[in-house]
Formats: sequence, structure tokens, C-alpha cells
Amino acid sequence: MELKLKELAALVGGQFANEADGETPIRGAAAIAEAGEGDITFFGNSKYLPALKKCQASAALVPEDFADSAPPVLIRVANPSLAFSRILEQFVPEPERFAPGVHPTAVVGPNVELGEGVSIQPFVVVEEGVRIAARSVIGAHGYVGRSAQIGADCLLHARVTVGSRCSLGDRVVVQPGAVIGSDGFGFTFAEGRHVKIPQVGIVRVDDDVEIGANVTIDRARFGRTWIQTGTKIDNLVQIAHNVVVGKHCILVAQVGISGSVRLGNYVTLAGQVGVAGHLEIADQIVVGAQTGINKSLSARNTYMGYPAVPASEWREQVAQIHRLSRLIERVKRLEEALEKQVSGLPKESSQEQS
Amino acid sequence: MELKLKELAALVGGQFANEADGETPIRGAAAIAEAGEGDITFFGNSKYLPALKKCQASAALVPEDFADSAPPVLIRVANPSLAFSRILEQFVPEPERFAPGVHPTAVVGPNVELGEGVSIQPFVVVEEGVRIAARSVIGAHGYVGRSAQIGADCLLHARVTVGSRCSLGDRVVVQPGAVIGSDGFGFTFAEGRHVKIPQVGIVRVDDDVEIGANVTIDRARFGRTWIQTGTKIDNLVQIAHNVVVGKHCILVAQVGISGSVRLGNYVTLAGQVGVAGHLEIADQIVVGAQTGINKSLSARNTYMGYPAVPASEWREQVAQIHRLSRLIERVKRLEEALEKQVSGLPKESSQEQS
Amino acid sequence: MELKLKELAALVGGQFANEADGETPIRGAAAIAEAGEGDITFFGNSKYLPALKKCQASAALVPEDFADSAPPVLIRVANPSLAFSRILEQFVPEPERFAPGVHPTAVVGPNVELGEGVSIQPFVVVEEGVRIAARSVIGAHGYVGRSAQIGADCLLHARVTVGSRCSLGDRVVVQPGAVIGSDGFGFTFAEGRHVKIPQVGIVRVDDDVEIGANVTIDRARFGRTWIQTGTKIDNLVQIAHNVVVGKHCILVAQVGISGSVRLGNYVTLAGQVGVAGHLEIADQIVVGAQTGINKSLSARNTYMGYPAVPASEWREQVAQIHRLSRLIERVKRLEEALEKQVSGLPKESSQEQS
Repeated sequence: MELKLKELAALVGGQFANEADGETPIRGAAAIAEAGEGDITFFGNSKYLPALKKCQASAALVPEDFADSAPPVLIRVANPSLAFSRILEQFVPEPERFAPGVHPTAVVGPNVELGEGVSIQPFVVVEEGVRIAARSVIGAHGYVGRSAQIGADCLLHARVTVGSRCSLGDRVVVQPGAVIGSDGFGFTFAEGRHVKIPQVGIVRVDDDVEIGANVTIDRARFGRTWIQTGTKIDNLVQIAHNVVVGKHCILVAQVGISGSVRLGNYVTLAGQVGVAGHLEIADQIVVGAQTGINKSLSARNTYMGYPAVPASEWREQVAQIHRLSRLIERVKRLEEALEKQVSGLPKESSQEQS
Repeated sequence: MELKLKELAALVGGQFANEADGETPIRGAAAIAEAGEGDITFFGNSKYLPALKKCQASAALVPEDFADSAPPVLIRVANPSLAFSRILEQFVPEPERFAPGVHPTAVVGPNVELGEGVSIQPFVVVEEGVRIAARSVIGAHGYVGRSAQIGADCLLHARVTVGSRCSLGDRVVVQPGAVIGSDGFGFTFAEGRHVKIPQVGIVRVDDDVEIGANVTIDRARFGRTWIQTGTKIDNLVQIAHNVVVGKHCILVAQVGISGSVRLGNYVTLAGQVGVAGHLEIADQIVVGAQTGINKSLSARNTYMGYPAVPASEWREQVAQIHRLSRLIERVKRLEEALEKQVSGLPKESSQEQS
Repeated sequence: MELKLKELAALVGGQFANEADGETPIRGAAAIAEAGEGDITFFGNSKYLPALKKCQASAALVPEDFADSAPPVLIRVANPSLAFSRILEQFVPEPERFAPGVHPTAVVGPNVELGEGVSIQPFVVVEEGVRIAARSVIGAHGYVGRSAQIGADCLLHARVTVGSRCSLGDRVVVQPGAVIGSDGFGFTFAEGRHVKIPQVGIVRVDDDVEIGANVTIDRARFGRTWIQTGTKIDNLVQIAHNVVVGKHCILVAQVGISGSVRLGNYVTLAGQVGVAGHLEIADQIVVGAQTGINKSLSARNTYMGYPAVPASEWREQVAQIHRLSRLIERVKRLEEALEKQVSGLPKESSQEQS
């Protein structure tokens, strides 16, 4: 997509602040800090003036009263942010469409039911007994195991694995490389070795769930690992066997959830959080990044730290730790003061080094 | 799989506690908290009574003296847990079998040796000089690099990468998306840039190892990265170049092990543990979740925290940090008491705010 | 590759320390701790004597004055380390070469431009409008989305995904399983559910970048997620939408970088570091393993802990926490001493348990 600068100026009713070549081709729209040659950006907050001064964009939308200068061609508009949004729409690419039908390279087993308008991309493997409902797309190199079920209007990007018998609801989006239905990590220790416990359950993913790139969701030992309606899972998250994630949860990247954990609805786990096995986390709880949860959490709150405590408590702990030097100093002075008073303090204590 | 309720009741010698439709179809068995319509569950522990009261299962096995009511059809049995195990067996699906032979879509290079009963699934690439022993399965979209060796009875699920010259023993199980033999992360810094150090070693995986979904194991700079017999590796674990993991270790999800680390035998690293480079961790050591190890550990113990300390010590530290407010309060009172005594304490100290 | 022991001895001008079979076949070279039968190793540091004493290598290079004994055949040389390097070269395999051309199984869309000597391996999918410059290799099962651009001399190992419109510079190396251009994790909350914000930007990767196995790099909401020249990214790293990583940075395994973060040049993030959204990290900053960064860092330094502080400060905090028991003991003695003086301390304080 490429537009001339004068076309974009006209679109938003803007005036060039200085002489400019209206024929300049603009190929993208980006934030000040990222914009480069061929991009248009916008300046709406004086905090970003230093960034604008060294900005490499070909053009920038500025407020009508902007009096300063900057490397990009400046276009004065009433509301730079709003104008930028309108320009942005010009550069939004058409969403990718995948033609319906089964690509000739795909391998589709017997007794497979494909709904109307389903798209099976190159090199996909669909095993025996799979059902895929209307308009769903299985991206290139996808693997759908025996008797798995996929609802309508799903978009599985390239290279997604759905294990045998697992089920996805409608409108589920899966980013590349995600694995749904790997074996749970279950072993029993006998005679000096770890013996595999069969993992014969499934993964069930409900409607409107999104699953990030290279995420792993293990199948249950028996029964199901269950991701409920509307939950969104970021990249590289690990969900172990028999976990139940409630509705409309947010699991940020690299979160790890151990076996049989149950999350309520509207739970948010920030990046790199870890949850130990068999715990329950109640509705609407928020957990800060990198927090380690080793007890069930029932009170609605924000939690931080390892072990997790309410965020206010964690912040107080952090502040106290940062002031430990001063506390130690105060204790030392107390000891010295008492020492001067010919106190009853034992000798070894007052000589102690901290 | 579908069975009638009366068939399951008969199987375990159970009696319906209330009037019930024995023709109700049961399609699965699940724990109380997960069971839904069409499932049978069991109630064996009074702790789960509240869960049973709102359980959506179609039926539940209860003890013979169970006198309460609950939504599912109740079936009285002598030992609900045992009865449940017998029912569970009815719903365990047959293990997936992969037909022996090379799928016509697979690309197999020259000088490849395939043992008896080997199964090469669709779209697999087996490069020149590979040897795969009897009955091993290479799942769809697998990639086996030049001169790699795979033992007997291995099961590589869909989409596994085994780099050139790497070797797997017998009965190795690899979950989808795992990468065995990516380049080690080795660079030397020269003239302002990082220059790649060739990573010409291999990964060697011994018998009975299991490797989780989307795990990454780097090849050695030279020599080998080595996973020894019986070790089990959970999803999304990172193992860097030249690491040696001993026998029968357990590496839980998202563990990261830096270059040239050596783990002894029977070591357990819980989820999200990180180990810095070139360290040694002795036999049978257990490391708690999210722990950061920056020194070698030789004493058999459980370790926690960052930097890692014995777990008892870590728990004491945590308790002390939780009580810091009280300690600060005590110091303040001491200061006030001394102040009252017209003590020798300098003024600025007693005014200090904590 | 296999060489006789006498050939290797001759190569480095070494003398057998004891009677030995010069015909012994040597198939590899490895460090003392890793070397097994068929390997040659070297001993250059007395610290490793215990390791040498139980070393299973077939041969070891030792200094000329080495007087001890060990299981391997010993070969005396002037400089064992140097001699080992020369021997190592004998065992370095030829780098893998991928024949130019498009494999007959690959699916290449319309309007694709392939430079001279490009190699498209089996089962690769190259969508419409892609441009790939001279001599680049797209490994087996690779996916290159619509209108993506790949520079010259790139090596994409097996199973790499490059999303639509994303661009890679020259000499970019990508390890297996990496996903470049998954959707950013962006949702807006409305009427009780998370609604997807279209992620229409791209990922731009500059020259000489290396990207590890199963790494995930999200495309920008708009504009670009940008990895600049010479940066090296280890396995399982997560880079969110609109992040800018400067030149020649090092991101060690399992690092997670939240949306819109900006790293300067020559930044090093050690393993499992997490960076919260919208922060800036200045040039040449080093961040220790597992550190959690929740504020922008501008002063060049090494940072540790959560929240991140300068490493020296973190080490002091750790030391103080390790000594908390002693501090508590000192406060208790002060309380007792004051108590003896018939002090003004309130009763409840001196009775308090810590």
C-alpha cells in the first residue's frame, strides 16, 4: 500500500507547516519512536518532543499551534491522534483470506466430516474420524489427531497440533506452533525409575478462546484439561494436565500452571507467573508478573511475590528490605548507646559485625 | 465410547440411591469438579461434599451409607474410588497405533536404514544416512537430520525435530514441537559484534527418556549435550549446549539450564527453575519452583529461593521478611525508651522514619 | 569420522606415556567430564585431576611432566589445550549444505521472487508475493507468509514460521520452531469479554540477527516489532508486539519482553528475565538472570532482583536477609537489657515473640 503525502493531508484536512513535496510516497504509519523513512507518524503529547526532534519519519501530524521544527514534513491538524487513526485505516492490510477447500497436498483420513467452507491448507494432516465445522481454517502443516473436533469459524494458523480426541469450540484462534493435547507429565516412581502413567484424557477448549504461539496444553490424565469460554492465552504458556481455566481469563506470556489447578473466571496472570499443583484461584484475582503461587487464593485482590501475598503487602516488604541498611544502623546505635550506659548487654553482641 | 448407566451400575455392583433412568448414556468419567453432563464421577471424601452438591455429572458413585442428596443420579457402592477405577477402564481409549511403513508423502534420503516395523508418517523428512531402529514411529511433519540415529520403540509425536548427527536411545518418547539439536547459543565478541562460534557437537539422548512439547535442547559446541537414561523432561524446558543431565532426573515445565551444567542422578528441578552456567548439582537434590541457582550444590537437600538456599532456611527468611514491620516497630520502641532515659543516642537517629 | 590413536598422536607430536594400542579407533573429542569410550580428551588444569581419574575416554592429552596415572591412554604433549584444538578440527563435521533449487514437494505461490541459489526444502510453503534474496535457505516445513521478505544468505532451519509481510535482513539465522510474526496479545475489555484488537503491523528483523529455537516474536499492533542488527536471541524467548530491540543485544533463553518495550544497543538480558510493558532500557545495560524489571533503566550498570536494583545493592540485600536472624537476636538482647534497667519499654513489646 502506498499513498502520496498530499493525498493523506487532504484525507485529514491538514495543512503543510512548511514547503513539502506532496508527491512523497508514504507506505506506512507508525509511532514516533518507530517511524522511519516512508512512514507517517503523529505528535500529540509534548513528552514526545525530543523523540519528534530526531524522528526519521517522512511526515508527522502535529497540532495546529505547533510552532517548533522537526525533521519530518509537518502537517497541521486539529486533532493529530484522531487524524492518525483515520490514516492508519488506509494502511491496514486486508485480512488474510484462506480459500475454502482441501489443498491437494493435504492428507485427510477416513470418516472425516468437514463443514461448509472449511479450508485445509497445504501439508495438513487430518486423522480418521475428525470433525471440523463450517468455515474453520487449518493452516499449513497443521495436525489434527484422531477423532478430534473443531468448531465453526476457527482459525488455526500454520503448524498447530491438536491431539487425538481433543475438542475446540467455535471462533477459537490458535497462533503458530501451539500444541494442544500433548501428554500430561505424569509418572510414578517404582524400582528406581519413573514409570509413565497413561494420559488418556483430552483437552477441551471452549468458544472464543485464543491460544498463543508455541503454547503447550497437556491432555488430562483422565477427564479433561479445560479452557473455558473467552479466555486468552499468550505465547509460550504451559498448562499442565487436568487444569481448568475459567471464563474470560488472561494468561500472559510464559505463565506456567501445574497439574489440576483451577482458575475461576476473569483471572489475570501476568507474565512468567508460576502456579503450583492442585491450587484454586478465585474469580477476578490478578497476579503480578513472575509471582510464585504456592497456596490457593480465595480473596479477590492483586497478588505479588514468592510466596504470593497481597500486592500492598509485597510493596511494603520490598520497601522494608530496601531500608534494611538503615534498620541495622539504628540497632547498632542503640547497642552503642546502651554500651555507654554500662548496660547489661553481653560483650559478644555489641562487637558483632553486621 | 458410550455405555448405559445401568450397565455401569451392574459392572460395579452398585445400587441406585433414587429412581433413575438406567438408559441414560454415559460417555465419560471425570473428577467431581470437572464432570459434566454425560459423565460419571465418584465421591469418596467428605471434603468434596460442596462440590458434589453443585456437580453437573449425570451420575456419581457414593458410599453405601451416603444419606445426602445431590444433582447427579447416585449409585451406592462399597468403595467408590475402586469402583470408579473399574469404570474408568471402560472409557480409556485404545492407544493410538501407527501403521508400519513409510507414508508415500514422506521424503527419505539416500543411505537411510529403517528397522523392522518402523512407521514414517506423512510429510516426514528423513535426511541422508539416518538410522532408525525397529518399531519406532516418526510422527507427521517430523524432521530427522543427516546421519541422526534413533533407537528402537521410540515414539516421536507430530512435528519433532532431531538435528543432524544427534542420537536417541530406545523407548524415547518425544512430544510435539520439541527441538533436539538446535545450535548452542555461543558467540564471541569482536570488533563491536557477536560472532558465532560453530556448534559442531551433538545431542545424545539415552534410553527411556521422555521429552515434552516444545522443549529445546541445544547441540554441544563440541562433544555432546547428554540426557541420560530414564530422565523425564516436561514442556517448554530449555537445555543449553554441553549440559549433562544424569539418570532418572525430573525437569518440570519451563526449567532453563545454562551451558555446561552437570546434573547428577535423580535430581528434581521444579517448574521455572533456572540454573546458571557451568554449575554442578549433585545426586538426588530437589529444587523448588522458580528457584535461581547460581552456585554448585553438593549437599543432598531441597533448595529454594534466589540465590538458592536450603528450603528450611528459605522458609525462615520468608517468615522473617513477613515480620519485618514488627521488628521495625520494636526498634522504634527501643529508641523511644532510650530517648526517655536521656540516652546518648544521636538526635537524627531517633527522628528517623522507617 | 574415525582416526587411529597413533595418527592423532603424530598429528600433535605427542608421546604415549604408557604402552598403548595405536590402532585404537577414536571417533570424537570431548571435555573430560563428557568424554566416553572412543573419545579423546585433554587435561590442562590440576583442578580436573579427580575427573581425569574416573574419565572414560579412550585417550587423554596430558602435559609432558604429568606423572600420575588415569584410565585413558595418556599422550604427553607440550600444550594439551592447543593440541586438543588441533585434534578437534579433525572431528568437526562439514557444515551442512542445502542444494539450491525448489524441492518438488514445496508449494510456492504466485508472484514469488527467488534470488540466485536460494534453497527451498521439502514441504515448505511460500505464499503469494514473497521475495527471498540470493543463497538463502528455507528449511523443511518452513512457512513464509504472504508478501514476506527474506534477505540474502539467511539460514532458516526446519520448521520456521515467518508471518505475512514480515521482513528479515541478510545473514539472519533462525533455529527450528521459531515463530516470527504471530499476532500481538492485544484485547480490549467490553461487555464482560476480551475483544481482539487487530494486529496489523509486522516484525522487522535486521541483518546478522540470530533467533533461537521455539522463540516467539509477535507482530506489531501497527508499525513494527523491530529486532536490530546483530542481536542474538536464545531459545524460548518471547518478544511482544511493538518491542524494539537495539543493535547487538544478547537475550538469553526464556527471557520475556512485554509490549512496546525499547532496548538500547548492546543490552544483555540473562536467562528468564522479565520486562514489563512500555519500559526503556538504555545502551549496554546488563540484567542478571530471573530479574524482574518494572521500571525503565537509564544508568549503565548491572541489575538484579525483583524489582530490579543495581547488582551491588541486590547482593547487599541478600546478605542482609541472610543475617536477619542475627539482627532479630540483637534486638531481643537490647530489649532484655533495657528491661533489666527497669526501662520505659511497654510490657507487650518485650514479651513479643519473633
